[in-house]
Amino acid sequence: MPGFKYSAVKCGIRYEDRLDYGLIAADVPCNAAGVFTQNALAAAPVRMCREKITRPVRALLLNSTNANACTGRTGYNNAKFLAEDMAERLGVNESAVLMCSTGVIGVQLPAEKMAESHNALVSSLASGNGELISRTIMTTDTAPKQGAVSFETSAGTFTIAGAAKGSGMIAPNMATLLALLVTNAPLERERLQNILEWAADETLNKISVDGDTSTNDSAILLSPVSAEPLSEPADINAFAEALLALLSDLSEQLVRDGEGATKLIRVHVKGAKDKNDAVLMAKSISGSVLVKTAFFGEDPNWGRIAMAVGNSGAEVLEDCLSISFGDCNFLDHGRPNQISQERIKAVMSQKDITVTVDCDLGDGEAVFLTTDLSYEYVKINAEYTT
Amino acid sequence: MPGFKYSAVKCGIRYEDRLDYGLIAADVPCNAAGVFTQNALAAAPVRMCREKITRPVRALLLNSTNANACTGRTGYNNAKFLAEDMAERLGVNESAVLMCSTGVIGVQLPAEKMAESHNALVSSLASGNGELISRTIMTTDTAPKQGAVSFETSAGTFTIAGAAKGSGMIAPNMATLLALLVTNAPLERERLQNILEWAADETLNKISVDGDTSTNDSAILLSPVSAEPLSEPADINAFAEALLALLSDLSEQLVRDGEGATKLIRVHVKGAKDKNDAVLMAKSISGSVLVKTAFFGEDPNWGRIAMAVGNSGAEVLEDCLSISFGDCNFLDHGRPNQISQERIKAVMSQKDITVTVDCDLGDGEAVFLTTDLSYEYVKINAEYTT
Repeated sequence: MPGFKYSAVKCGIRYEDRLDYGLIAADVPCNAAGVFTQNALAAAPVRMCREKITRPVRALLLNSTNANACTGRTGYNNAKFLAEDMAERLGVNESAVLMCSTGVIGVQLPAEKMAESHNALVSSLASGNGELISRTIMTTDTAPKQGAVSFETSAGTFTIAGAAKGSGMIAPNMATLLALLVTNAPLERERLQNILEWAADETLNKISVDGDTSTNDSAILLSPVSAEPLSEPADINAFAEALLALLSDLSEQLVRDGEGATKLIRVHVKGAKDKNDAVLMAKSISGSVLVKTAFFGEDPNWGRIAMAVGNSGAEVLEDCLSISFGDCNFLDHGRPNQISQERIKAVMSQKDITVTVDCDLGDGEAVFLTTDLSYEYVKINAEYTT
Repeated sequence: MPGFKYSAVKCGIRYEDRLDYGLIAADVPCNAAGVFTQNALAAAPVRMCREKITRPVRALLLNSTNANACTGRTGYNNAKFLAEDMAERLGVNESAVLMCSTGVIGVQLPAEKMAESHNALVSSLASGNGELISRTIMTTDTAPKQGAVSFETSAGTFTIAGAAKGSGMIAPNMATLLALLVTNAPLERERLQNILEWAADETLNKISVDGDTSTNDSAILLSPVSAEPLSEPADINAFAEALLALLSDLSEQLVRDGEGATKLIRVHVKGAKDKNDAVLMAKSISGSVLVKTAFFGEDPNWGRIAMAVGNSGAEVLEDCLSISFGDCNFLDHGRPNQISQERIKAVMSQKDITVTVDCDLGDGEAVFLTTDLSYEYVKINAEYTT
């Protein structure tokens, strides 16, 4: 996609011989939209991005292996120093460089060492290097995650491309969901922000690996500043749908690569009193350790789904509640059904399983993606030593 | 303790050859206090207890292996039938028999079969059988949990005794925290209820194995109706302290026997803005899968504690936050400390570890008990097949 260039280096921030420091640079000033962690101890780079994001952005620094979280004033100054040093080398305004970090909490960045990589990052910028970004931000991810979606408008064809890493705070001592997105479609900043918030809420905010929210979660979208931004309702709609499709794709990649995951569980709640209640129930089911271990064991334990629904805070009536796994309807309006072992096994042995909860109380609906919880998850998260 | 008799039988509710149906009978009418699950899909016996508990109680039926939850009108009628049948055999008012159930969700009780055990339950009642109760309510508990505390008052010495099972909804397909308590100390019902709520909130509501709340959680306390209930403030206080001590003891037994637990983690939050904030933080830390797997791996991963604190919704300032494991202070007012591997290992290898979080914002304080999360937990909860 024209308009953006990428580079990455092995800086040695925490480990030798891995890509750990990268740069996305825009050819022209961009409007930037961002959604960030709700964690009260937001990392230094998140706090810096929040301050800068309403102004035009030209570049985005990103690093793995160090989250720059719980690092106080020094950590904030390090992020600011690196962004300003890069701004100077790129010849852009000092407020025009953002930063995203992922990795260990509570350790200061080696800022001087990282600044020494800035020349190499600038000199190796190339439009064909996008794939480097998804590799640079990996932590315990087993595969890089990226995608692109093109769409038609009255002003021609545009593309949105993105890279993402880590779903939930899932990695040993790592903090992190990052989604870095660029588009050549020009949009006004406020519109860009609204659409990103809407799309992230339908996708990135509806996945769960372990229910923990990291200090560094960030999704950032860059779009060129233009005198003629897209403004036709049909064009805006095409952009929004393309962004939703891209984030849906990235979200599913994130969940499939959740630590130790052997199954993708799609939790579909419908018939809730309203949308908020549907989200509460889907979130409670997706986050339940008991539900997730049952799926790992291929146990059709619908009682645990009922338990999670009842715990969610949403309105639910036992006599109206139905629960299915795939095409097996275990509970129908409060009445348990007997289902043959053959049919149960056919559903529970699948790699992708849809859980459907119907409350029969209203039109509220939500879909969450989650995983099972395996021995491997415990191993990854216990055997790592800080 | 005089005033109560106990019995239990192998009824064969779900499995042969195990104690699964029991009875606690009081010699005189009792005031009953109860605290029950907040789950919206409360089990039939919980709904029945809520209706009856303000009236004088003479007996309590209890069964394991079947939770009588998600069983609709039939399930409720079964609980009511069993309580009324027992009331008739005991020659007491039909509202005077309560019931507690724990076990599989969504399966109807074999009510006729259970009623056939009622003669045996009544005829074998004996004051020395208290230990049978703690064994009858076990599910995946590896040991029965019981205790007794005596205390002095102006009216003489009294005792509170209790049995408990399962902490959190921790057992395969089981639903479960039960605490059954009796005392020979006479108290007015409203006072009894208030003291039980206070003591349960400080103990049973501050333990966590997997963060899930079952459909059947119940704590019930019986105290003889008397024309001269304890009323001196010093006596009431002695009773309340004794109940708190007993429930603290039972809570610690429950957590130590949490599924797959290898460590007891005491989460002590202090310096929070207020008590509510302290509880939010302690609960968030105790429920975090990432925190719990780190303890299993003996990893001093204080960044995960910071993550959980930041996610709790409580007010927290990075520059004021301190985090210690045992005597190792990893974070001091936002500044990480370097600690020797020897000192870290000495703390992390303990079976009992205290995590101290100091927010330095106020006087709010809370202590929660939790466990680590091990391979064994996943095994117990995945390999069971419904």
